[in-house]
Amino acid sequence: MLYVVATPIGNLADITLRALEVLKNVDVVAAEDTRRSGLLLKHVGIQKPFVSYHEHNEAARTAELTERLARGDNIALITDAGTPSIANCRSRSFPGRLRS
Amino acid sequence: MLYVVATPIGNLADITLRALEVLKNVDVVAAEDTRRSGLLLKHVGIQKPFVSYHEHNEAARTAELTERLARGDNIALITDAGTPSIANCRSRSFPGRLRS
Repeated sequence: MLYVVATPIGNLADITLRALEVLKNVDVVAAEDTRRSGLLLKHVGIQKPFVSYHEHNEAARTAELTERLARGDNIALITDAGTPSIANCRSRSFPGRLRS
Repeated sequence: MLYVVATPIGNLADITLRALEVLKNVDVVAAEDTRRSGLLLKHVGIQKPFVSYHEHNEAARTAELTERLARGDNIALITDAGTPSIANCRSRSFPGRLRS
């Protein structure tokens, strides 16, 4: 399953309990910037494998993540801040492409 | 100090770590509906004194809460769901009146 997870804008403590629960339980976190998202997960005491997922590797990575979803993996999609494709700083097409 | 705290709309797990931290540390929670807010705090394992604060007791309660703030008490202001006076279901003037 793909989880689209909102992350804090500014204050790392603005993450929700539900976001933490999802991040704890997925197999992998697909992140716009793994370094920035690594800091967030470190801040909340969660260790997870990351894959980078951004405009420069989108095509190849979408195929890879789609395949993982088809195998039953749980993936959290996050961006640097905000909600991917909804209230993110930059508009991206990740979830739509992953669904297709 | 007065803390205006956003509470979840729908899913109780959508509360943030920062909201939990504030609710844990205030002296009293001023809530629109103490029964509903009691369920939220119970859900997250926090026990706090409540005062009801709604349209029918607003004038008297504002005086009482302003006095407590002046004495140095920390008060969290919450509504049933959302952010008081910003993105709440009903528009209220609590924070403005408490500041005045």
